[in-house]
Amino acid sequence: MTPALGDIGKRLLLGRKLRSTQLGETLLPKRLALPVFASDALSSVAYAPDEIFLTLSLSGLAAYSFSWKIGLLVAFVMLVVVASYRQNVHAYPSGGGDYEVATVNIGPTAGLTVASALMVDYVLTVAVSISSGVQNAKSALPFLAGHEVPIAVGLVLLLTAMNLRGVRESGAVFAIPTYIFMAAVIGMALWGVIRYAAGALPLAESANFEVRPEPGHEVFNGLAAVFLLARAFSSGCAALTGVEAISNGVPAFRKPKSKNAATTLLLLGTIAVTMLMSILFLADKIRLRFAEDPATQLTQNGEPIGPGYAQKTVIAQIADSVFSNFPPGFYLVIGATMLILVLAANTAFNGFPVLGSILARDGFLPRQLHTRGDRLAYSNGIILLALCAIGLIVAFDAEVTKLIQLYIVGVFVSFTLSQFGMIRHWTRHLKSETDGGKRNQMMRSRVINTVGLTMTGIVLVIVLLTKFTHGAYIAIIAMAALFLLMKGIRRHYDTVGRQTAVDSDETLMLPSRVHAIVLVSKLHKPTLRALAFAKASRPYTVEAVTVDVDREESDVLQAEWDRMGIPIPLKRLASPYREITRPILQYVRDIRRQSPRDVVMVYIPEYVVGHWWEHVLHNQSALRLKGRLLFTPGVMVTSVPYQLISSQAAEERQDREERVAGQVRRGPRKSSGDR
Amino acid sequence: MTPALGDIGKRLLLGRKLRSTQLGETLLPKRLALPVFASDALSSVAYAPDEIFLTLSLSGLAAYSFSWKIGLLVAFVMLVVVASYRQNVHAYPSGGGDYEVATVNIGPTAGLTVASALMVDYVLTVAVSISSGVQNAKSALPFLAGHEVPIAVGLVLLLTAMNLRGVRESGAVFAIPTYIFMAAVIGMALWGVIRYAAGALPLAESANFEVRPEPGHEVFNGLAAVFLLARAFSSGCAALTGVEAISNGVPAFRKPKSKNAATTLLLLGTIAVTMLMSILFLADKIRLRFAEDPATQLTQNGEPIGPGYAQKTVIAQIADSVFSNFPPGFYLVIGATMLILVLAANTAFNGFPVLGSILARDGFLPRQLHTRGDRLAYSNGIILLALCAIGLIVAFDAEVTKLIQLYIVGVFVSFTLSQFGMIRHWTRHLKSETDGGKRNQMMRSRVINTVGLTMTGIVLVIVLLTKFTHGAYIAIIAMAALFLLMKGIRRHYDTVGRQTAVDSDETLMLPSRVHAIVLVSKLHKPTLRALAFAKASRPYTVEAVTVDVDREESDVLQAEWDRMGIPIPLKRLASPYREITRPILQYVRDIRRQSPRDVVMVYIPEYVVGHWWEHVLHNQSALRLKGRLLFTPGVMVTSVPYQLISSQAAEERQDREERVAGQVRRGPRKSSGDR
Repeated sequence: MTPALGDIGKRLLLGRKLRSTQLGETLLPKRLALPVFASDALSSVAYAPDEIFLTLSLSGLAAYSFSWKIGLLVAFVMLVVVASYRQNVHAYPSGGGDYEVATVNIGPTAGLTVASALMVDYVLTVAVSISSGVQNAKSALPFLAGHEVPIAVGLVLLLTAMNLRGVRESGAVFAIPTYIFMAAVIGMALWGVIRYAAGALPLAESANFEVRPEPGHEVFNGLAAVFLLARAFSSGCAALTGVEAISNGVPAFRKPKSKNAATTLLLLGTIAVTMLMSILFLADKIRLRFAEDPATQLTQNGEPIGPGYAQKTVIAQIADSVFSNFPPGFYLVIGATMLILVLAANTAFNGFPVLGSILARDGFLPRQLHTRGDRLAYSNGIILLALCAIGLIVAFDAEVTKLIQLYIVGVFVSFTLSQFGMIRHWTRHLKSETDGGKRNQMMRSRVINTVGLTMTGIVLVIVLLTKFTHGAYIAIIAMAALFLLMKGIRRHYDTVGRQTAVDSDETLMLPSRVHAIVLVSKLHKPTLRALAFAKASRPYTVEAVTVDVDREESDVLQAEWDRMGIPIPLKRLASPYREITRPILQYVRDIRRQSPRDVVMVYIPEYVVGHWWEHVLHNQSALRLKGRLLFTPGVMVTSVPYQLISSQAAEERQDREERVAGQVRRGPRKSSGDR
Repeated sequence: MTPALGDIGKRLLLGRKLRSTQLGETLLPKRLALPVFASDALSSVAYAPDEIFLTLSLSGLAAYSFSWKIGLLVAFVMLVVVASYRQNVHAYPSGGGDYEVATVNIGPTAGLTVASALMVDYVLTVAVSISSGVQNAKSALPFLAGHEVPIAVGLVLLLTAMNLRGVRESGAVFAIPTYIFMAAVIGMALWGVIRYAAGALPLAESANFEVRPEPGHEVFNGLAAVFLLARAFSSGCAALTGVEAISNGVPAFRKPKSKNAATTLLLLGTIAVTMLMSILFLADKIRLRFAEDPATQLTQNGEPIGPGYAQKTVIAQIADSVFSNFPPGFYLVIGATMLILVLAANTAFNGFPVLGSILARDGFLPRQLHTRGDRLAYSNGIILLALCAIGLIVAFDAEVTKLIQLYIVGVFVSFTLSQFGMIRHWTRHLKSETDGGKRNQMMRSRVINTVGLTMTGIVLVIVLLTKFTHGAYIAIIAMAALFLLMKGIRRHYDTVGRQTAVDSDETLMLPSRVHAIVLVSKLHKPTLRALAFAKASRPYTVEAVTVDVDREESDVLQAEWDRMGIPIPLKRLASPYREITRPILQYVRDIRRQSPRDVVMVYIPEYVVGHWWEHVLHNQSALRLKGRLLFTPGVMVTSVPYQLISSQAAEERQDREERVAGQVRRGPRKSSGDR
């Protein structure tokens, strides 16, 4: 469990959230389960307070006094959601994710809605976390300013490469940065409170600035004020993302699983709320000012401060004040924040392919994504996630404030539907349950989930109302498009399933005879091998066939054929328009027409090459021809490989990679309960 | 030959230069050959004068008086090049293009250099012609300003679509717009001269402007002036592109081919020179002012005229003046100019794939590009050309002035090497020729080609010197990269050729027995068909094999298997890590290890689908597995197709498309003399 020291740095960066299926026999005690599942939820305190202050600053300082009230509201919602998910944990000790809860209890459409929402939100988790990580890095290393997009893209590519290589991580490695982050933030909070109590807490560097209200927000009252506070609250709710992770991971806990998971969930909620409230409290005390566009919104002596001021993140400004006399503390807080944000992004790199695999199992995504044993299944998911996240980062300039407008919608869609599903779950079980004690328990759970549904539903409506035009509509369009795509894929698979289903009275109908045709363009070793293999399979007839594209070349071929005395006749097909495919197709169809109960086996010599670019240079005509031949009923196409020298190294490489991949994926052999 | 009236509009746009191979039995009289081969060369008068004036305007009006002298110099070079290519036409009546002339007479490296230069120049022909077309369109329809890039890209896409569909054109259709263009420009010139002689030619709308010299060019004398004139001359030499087209097309002429082609070439040169000189003359007389950046360079009363002035192209300003009392004339000139520019771009869409096919024949490009009968071979070339041209248009904002800096280098590399090759050609033939009259003829030709070499060589050096830093370096880098790529491809094919060559004493070595393995994942119709086909080919052993990824699913399969009483044993392979590929690979290798002289035939049931996106949903595991199996010696892979309903429509469509493509490509059956 303790990796070699030289490895730690690398592993810290690579850590991937452990999933039940990857843990094998190792089950997690609570002290490891907490950090393993917490990075996503905890990391949001790195950007949620910033977004609250940004939004409030639209109305100038007048709205700042509401920051901690909004914080309290977010904390309240957080505790309600935690209480609700504690019911999920008890009801689905197998780790039923929101997708399964919604599918089982409401129906496939609800399940698919949840899945679309989660897929989109995974992409946003990566984009938001990485962008926020870069923002925080900029607070400590100001020279990074202006290069946010390339740095963020670079980090995503790094995570992608790590995940593609399938690096293995352990709970301990994952735990270290999470605990460092918790210790750093809570330590900062304690030390800040002590200094404040002693009257020794310096003000923020931004404390002297005024905040100029934006046009239209000069007066802070009435409906506009309520709307602004609601928007700030919506942004603050980003702190709730990731809470659902534990409910997916119940099987990874030590026994009693459900109880331990529920306790850990409560612990996670408490820590997250504590952190959020501490940061909002200290921000108030150091008189922090924070604006979306500091150059024009922040003023000093009535004048805008201009582009010279580099605004640090909220957590960095607090760390600056609290550790004014101890700079290493500042760097520890910023470093730990960056690390946990990257870890949070990494959880999406794990969750996205897993959810994709479950959706593929249910026929909503291409089926090959389900083959967990296949490295490529995960690679595709990882690459897709990376591409989407990079697209978002580039499109939104790696600005957390813009990206956060798209975020959370998905999570709250998923929360809301999951809670609704849980209510149905209890209602259904209450119908058959007779034991009075258990019934009481279920009734209580149903009440809690109902409160959860009400709360998450209200937040969802608030988020939609306040953020729809600011960007949430993009997320919703993406979800709708994904939903329709998955629905279409499922419909296609169903159609194919009906087409290929075996009738109950069906038997094996053997064709009478096999006619073998070997395609020949030149007389070289690959051709000889194909001829030998074709002859060895003893077909009813065997012929070599060449297309007379170039008369001279064909004559040379014929002469060589005769000289070598090859015991198979060479048939030359005329091709007035110098085509290859059509004459062969025609010839094969003629054979079939003459004897419809026979099958034709076409042997195609193929080069096996070692590099991807060699594929471009070989076999293209063969592949195209094969593609066309397969459309003809009663025809089989046999590839007879000829291994070029470059292929040997490639084979050894592939063998090695598969061996490594197999080792990484130790775990249970069944996929149920993956999420 | 006369298309339906409703078709004309479409055809005008689609016209593709007729090539010998496409003409079949129809040979061109000179009156059709001229327009067929002239569009590229003639269209350059639409932008060459603009570039001359643009460059001169860097030094203000002081340099304007040199415009017609530069024109004369360009005309002189044009006539020398025409005289030289008349020798090519006589020496290579089969239509040997510059690539073949250089390869045969100098060597493969020179030939490949010419080929790289021509390929790059084809891309530039599209980018420059289309961009110039949009510039001219803007002169008549000012509201297009600001949308140049999307319009240019749209035109390229339109040409691409037309060429991909393989629209057929006839010489007559091609001739109409070219003759309209000639008539419009020469008519405009005549009318302009008449009005000028009568003192009734109005000045240009730009005649009142002053031209402010650019910084560094205030004083027009010394080396700087010479350099500026040389640069203007280089840009003017764009008028020479396309002259070589006739020398490639000799076989398309009526007899006496060479003589007719030489006459047409002279005619083309004369017309091009006349047009160019007329435009330069009239531009001088209407006191036209033309600048790269009119908003700042053009001044009125000492003040820059600012962004409000929309500068028309040179040809448009002349048409404006000449037809000041007859607006339809203006629109006719602009319309014909646009049309011929699009036709010029279209010639590249024909030439690029043809040259690509010849290079593929010689092993410098992927071999499948040579299969002329195959629609895809051309499609790839067309798409590649379009992508490169679109890239250039976007990168250079569809600005002719920027693109022209990259142009011409390639053409003059090709001219120079071709002339050098011709000198060698005559020298070689002189060695064996004894007839005095013929010797004199050859000596004379060699002198002409030597003059041509000197002239084109000097122009090449001038172009390189004056344009290298302005953008020509990009073209040269592209040529060098292409050269190295093609060299590498040839080296690869040579290596493979050596690896696969048959030894003189080689015979057909038959393997002893065939073991058949049918891969099974489910018991559906595709599986039944694969089992039936495998059994029908009567192998030594036959087994169905499934991988135990999911125990329950496998149990279901086994039960169905037994229930249906399938007479082939079902082998279940264990897969602890839920992989598919590795267990099968291992199993096949085991069989081979036990009997190394036998071969294994793996039958894979494959879905045949009708839409490209269905491929993503099916056969992926099968394809991957096949890819891996082929690396193993002694293994064959047989695809047993199962045609889904959607595949039928696709097959009919493909058949139809191939039939149409075959009709389009009527022509000689051999590829020699293609260019």
